[in-house]
Amino acid sequence: MSQIYDRVALIGLGLIASSMFWAMKRGGLAGEVTGYARSEKTRATAREIGLCDRVCESAAEAVEGADLVVLCVPIGAMEAVTVEIAPHLAKGATVSDVGSVKRAVIEAVQPHLPKDVHFVPAHPLAGTEHSGPKSGFAELFENRWCLFVPEGADTKAVARLRKLWEAMGANVDEMEADHHDLVLAVTSHAPHLIAYTMVGVADDLRRVTDSEIIKYSAAGFRDFTRIAASDPTMWRDVFLTNKDATLEILGRFTEELFALQRAIRTGDGDHLFDYFTHTRAIRRGIIEAGQDTDAPDFGRGAAKE
Amino acid sequence: MSQIYDRVALIGLGLIASSMFWAMKRGGLAGEVTGYARSEKTRATAREIGLCDRVCESAAEAVEGADLVVLCVPIGAMEAVTVEIAPHLAKGATVSDVGSVKRAVIEAVQPHLPKDVHFVPAHPLAGTEHSGPKSGFAELFENRWCLFVPEGADTKAVARLRKLWEAMGANVDEMEADHHDLVLAVTSHAPHLIAYTMVGVADDLRRVTDSEIIKYSAAGFRDFTRIAASDPTMWRDVFLTNKDATLEILGRFTEELFALQRAIRTGDGDHLFDYFTHTRAIRRGIIEAGQDTDAPDFGRGAAKE
Repeated sequence: MSQIYDRVALIGLGLIASSMFWAMKRGGLAGEVTGYARSEKTRATAREIGLCDRVCESAAEAVEGADLVVLCVPIGAMEAVTVEIAPHLAKGATVSDVGSVKRAVIEAVQPHLPKDVHFVPAHPLAGTEHSGPKSGFAELFENRWCLFVPEGADTKAVARLRKLWEAMGANVDEMEADHHDLVLAVTSHAPHLIAYTMVGVADDLRRVTDSEIIKYSAAGFRDFTRIAASDPTMWRDVFLTNKDATLEILGRFTEELFALQRAIRTGDGDHLFDYFTHTRAIRRGIIEAGQDTDAPDFGRGAAKE
Repeated sequence: MSQIYDRVALIGLGLIASSMFWAMKRGGLAGEVTGYARSEKTRATAREIGLCDRVCESAAEAVEGADLVVLCVPIGAMEAVTVEIAPHLAKGATVSDVGSVKRAVIEAVQPHLPKDVHFVPAHPLAGTEHSGPKSGFAELFENRWCLFVPEGADTKAVARLRKLWEAMGANVDEMEADHHDLVLAVTSHAPHLIAYTMVGVADDLRRVTDSEIIKYSAAGFRDFTRIAASDPTMWRDVFLTNKDATLEILGRFTEELFALQRAIRTGDGDHLFDYFTHTRAIRRGIIEAGQDTDAPDFGRGAAKE
């Protein structure tokens, strides 16, 4: 594959940035990739494992001369980092991000950017429960969606960034910012809060010991702990910045949960059966859409060897 | 491995029974395995794929001469099936089951069994979102727990059944019935209801289309749909028969969820961060206990090939 950008700067070196680096290297998609992380320890680790062609001592230094700058920091840190890099951005450069909430990122970043820079907010729907500079791998984005929220950005800049994401294996879709935040509240943010809650309840329960919960987690709870192991800083910021949509979905969730609880209490088996039959069909749709495997045991068997 | 039972009868031919059959065949653990399913279609499928050495036309015929009978039907069907087979059970035979709730199964089965039969209730903590006679595979129980609730059953009968489960790859633990039902309410039953609810909410939301939910399910929601795709009949019966423990856990869950919702509403980032850091540690415990893989992307990558 051919080079798409001459110099890419990755600000923040966690799971997403490190996966982007390995995916860009694999495809020869960028001439040089610079990187910066606030923590000295992360920068040292990055140098040690060869993450980025050049690890810089400041964000300003990292963005110097870059034609693409990707903000890969938690949403709460976006504004400060933008203020810091803004005077050092090259004319005509594209700035993008990978934040899970888009309206809040646009509000934090856009006002501080020079007029001659193109801002193309993006959100790759990919992740694992691991975080940090060592957690990345080139295949993370394969067959995953990356949602762009270009909001009137220069179409050439958008097309070029799309080429990069597609070359890293992703499918790109465009969406309006508020709609993005609602869709993600349903498909990601609310489910994460619910998983966090359930894992917290289990841990809090005195009559069931921790070791019992851990030993007997195979059926159901295991999937919750996986979700609930995601990066705490990132998720704190997601909930604080996508507050309204998340709270709305959680309100609806509570309503439905109460209805099912009542069905259990009153012994209304038909209600439960119909509900469960209906949700099963949604799963089929996801497998048909190619977003998961149909392998038994969720495809985990093979990975254990 | 050597033969443990001369004749095993599997009543109900779904995911668990079919996996038991293939695991017993692989290890040469049973002389003959008979099987029965209520549905004619299931029996025909079983014959077609070689599931069971002999598929019988009645449960009574299947248990004739068996030294182990395993009830693999939904919990709501346990009593009727026990009444049917009781007069046909061989003297000294062991009767077991694989139900996800133990107190209700004991109450449904025990009173109908002849005195000269050993009842050893069991519950393998293993499953996938697939069901039916074609969904089984010999490896399902490997490194999974099987919980016995022997309640004073003959120790020789218990030891023999333990040998079978261990030979099928499972680790066996013994537990008191009510404690089993509470532990499972935490680790499995409540999580399932919550997953069902969240999937139902998503589907019910008019402003987000079904296709959007399905396309963008990668981050979090996908794991819920997997859980929520489990067999509706089985899960209806689980909730109806483990009502008290499930409702108690759901009550605690709602309390915690409200506290986190309040933290989001009031912008209490520290509360969220501390909570999420704490739940992350539980995940580590599960990986250390060997009940899941630490592979990134949850080990799914390998299975997709």
